[in-house]
Amino acid sequence: MPPFTFTIEAECHNTWARTGTIQTPHGTIQTPIFMPVGTQASVKSVSPEELRGVGAEIILANTYHLMLRPGSSLIASFGGLHSFMHWDGPILTDSGGFQVWSLGHLRKLNEDGVTFKSHLDGSLHTLTPERVMEIEAELGADIILPLDICAPYPYSAAAARSAMENTHPWEERALRAKERHRPEQTLFGIVQGAFEPDLRRESARTVGVLPFQGLSIGGLSVGEPKAIMWEMLKHVTPELPRYKPRHLLGVGSPEDFVIGAGLGMDMFDCVLPTRVARHGGLFTRYGRVNIRSAHFRTVQGPIEEGCDCYTCQHYSAGYVHHLLRAEEQLYSRLGTIHNIRFMLRLAEELRAAILANTYPAFRDEFLARYIPASEETRETQREKWKSARTRQS
Amino acid sequence: MPPFTFTIEAECHNTWARTGTIQTPHGTIQTPIFMPVGTQASVKSVSPEELRGVGAEIILANTYHLMLRPGSSLIASFGGLHSFMHWDGPILTDSGGFQVWSLGHLRKLNEDGVTFKSHLDGSLHTLTPERVMEIEAELGADIILPLDICAPYPYSAAAARSAMENTHPWEERALRAKERHRPEQTLFGIVQGAFEPDLRRESARTVGVLPFQGLSIGGLSVGEPKAIMWEMLKHVTPELPRYKPRHLLGVGSPEDFVIGAGLGMDMFDCVLPTRVARHGGLFTRYGRVNIRSAHFRTVQGPIEEGCDCYTCQHYSAGYVHHLLRAEEQLYSRLGTIHNIRFMLRLAEELRAAILANTYPAFRDEFLARYIPASEETRETQREKWKSARTRQS
Repeated sequence: MPPFTFTIEAECHNTWARTGTIQTPHGTIQTPIFMPVGTQASVKSVSPEELRGVGAEIILANTYHLMLRPGSSLIASFGGLHSFMHWDGPILTDSGGFQVWSLGHLRKLNEDGVTFKSHLDGSLHTLTPERVMEIEAELGADIILPLDICAPYPYSAAAARSAMENTHPWEERALRAKERHRPEQTLFGIVQGAFEPDLRRESARTVGVLPFQGLSIGGLSVGEPKAIMWEMLKHVTPELPRYKPRHLLGVGSPEDFVIGAGLGMDMFDCVLPTRVARHGGLFTRYGRVNIRSAHFRTVQGPIEEGCDCYTCQHYSAGYVHHLLRAEEQLYSRLGTIHNIRFMLRLAEELRAAILANTYPAFRDEFLARYIPASEETRETQREKWKSARTRQS
Repeated sequence: MPPFTFTIEAECHNTWARTGTIQTPHGTIQTPIFMPVGTQASVKSVSPEELRGVGAEIILANTYHLMLRPGSSLIASFGGLHSFMHWDGPILTDSGGFQVWSLGHLRKLNEDGVTFKSHLDGSLHTLTPERVMEIEAELGADIILPLDICAPYPYSAAAARSAMENTHPWEERALRAKERHRPEQTLFGIVQGAFEPDLRRESARTVGVLPFQGLSIGGLSVGEPKAIMWEMLKHVTPELPRYKPRHLLGVGSPEDFVIGAGLGMDMFDCVLPTRVARHGGLFTRYGRVNIRSAHFRTVQGPIEEGCDCYTCQHYSAGYVHHLLRAEEQLYSRLGTIHNIRFMLRLAEELRAAILANTYPAFRDEFLARYIPASEETRETQREKWKSARTRQS
């Protein structure tokens, strides 16, 4: 079993961007990397072979969802997540903390842990730092995260401090608890601190020196304006050890990926590319298009000229439009493949640019060309998704 | 462009079963064959590559659905159905007749044709035998069917005769109209006659001698007990020319496929294998199982031991069960692949048995082992599907 290692191959001279290689028991990851999200042990509508085909190197699965259904001990009895879902590449599981706060009901927090009601059937569950290590050992991912308290936005400075001060001891307890489980798993720490620069710096310093082999930045992209998220990273990154991989939890869009790499982030995960795909939002180098739009009805070319994804290689935009309009499931698959391939091609381009020391020009050209979804569009989407959220993230 | 040919390779000595080869412009079909249904230019939830992978040799698409959305002239502008949907194998399009009767609203029938309101948007459409030939030429399938009047069940003998007597002249008009279109397309005739043995024999004799290159048996499997369907075939098959392929429209289940082959049928199509799959009903040699059942939660083996489909080769029944329970789209794909592979493996087995002149024993062993869904289960399903039917078949 190869140990977890992270090797930096190149660093940008003008920004904090770097490119490197992570070794895990299930394979190698080139950074910066985007990780497709397989919430319930399936990246919605695509197969593991298709994930490989678009260049996915690691996927994320959600501890909260899997502990509730089908249950972590059941997954353990199937040989763990890799074997259960037929994906033999690296997997990262989050801690469930974020979903306890966003999906769980009637949460009760105390020093020991958190009790909540399942969004599925109302059953009561308690998570402690120790219990989360046990669950994640049963799931068997390559990279695992400790239970944390994710402060929502907006949040008072006092409450943010209290959440952070509760999270740090939980992380130390997770480190001790993990010793009892599987040595081939790698535990990352989580940096919190909400939207308070002082807290963010303090959390980065505190967690950064603990014996974690990587660091996830939590509590961002929870509804705040993007400028605030980037400002927080500007406080966090300089406090983090250079030699540990940095994971920006729950981020993001194509433009977030490009900007975040320049702020020193190595790993990114988000449901956005797969979720917007299912609703018709497909990425192109000029921004997101809505394939449902009548304009595409007669388009005989691909979604984007030059795209090397399976969808664009074999189907016209007009056919993809037809499938969405006719509510054919194949649409979700074709749209998802296109968007994930877009993110992973972007990852390849980011790495090449950093290696060539041309990242700043790459970023500026990308952002000049790519028109992001407006805040208003994002807000509408959030509202729409929120209503579906209690069922499934 | 190779012409349409049908060669019989072997005939059972004790039944009417036969095995042969059909040549079409898009490839060869071995009979007896099951044709997966791609109603809206997509076999629900599977890709063309997956269809090839399970051994599909020809698929069916629905003229009624495609003329309404996205429209046959649009499909023609994309180079026809094959190119539109990225399937380069043979395609058969039905005439739309059955759906006009089962899905359309406010139908008005006269000698010339039928006018109906679209189930999608209420728009008015008129189909005549000539117009259907035009639409099917635009769709560009290898095998096409003429407009017919499908008598529902139950139906008075007088009404059945009138429907049949209206259909026959329409078929002759279709033959003449087809001359104006694409010579590489092959027109089959349709035998009607509802549930009247005399009418069935008369229709088979009348349509059998017209210059069609194959014959579809319509108006069966519309809600009648199966025994009645088989009785009708016993009247029809002896009246049909031996050298033309025979297509049993809209049939059926695994047991129907096995029995129908013995009654001289060569081609079968039905949404049942794909539709029941999406609802959790998966075929095994012992009958249909419901993968949603709690029993499968912990099953680490495949859906069926020994099954050579992608699903059974790579996933446990427990994982497939989880995907269905968690409402993951990947479930529909895995279940559909399993059921279509079951039908096409059954086709291979039927052909081998007919070649070896062991069809009767094969049929009897299959039927002794395979427990079909009860009439009650089938009735419940029909009711459930009927409510969804006005949206999509």
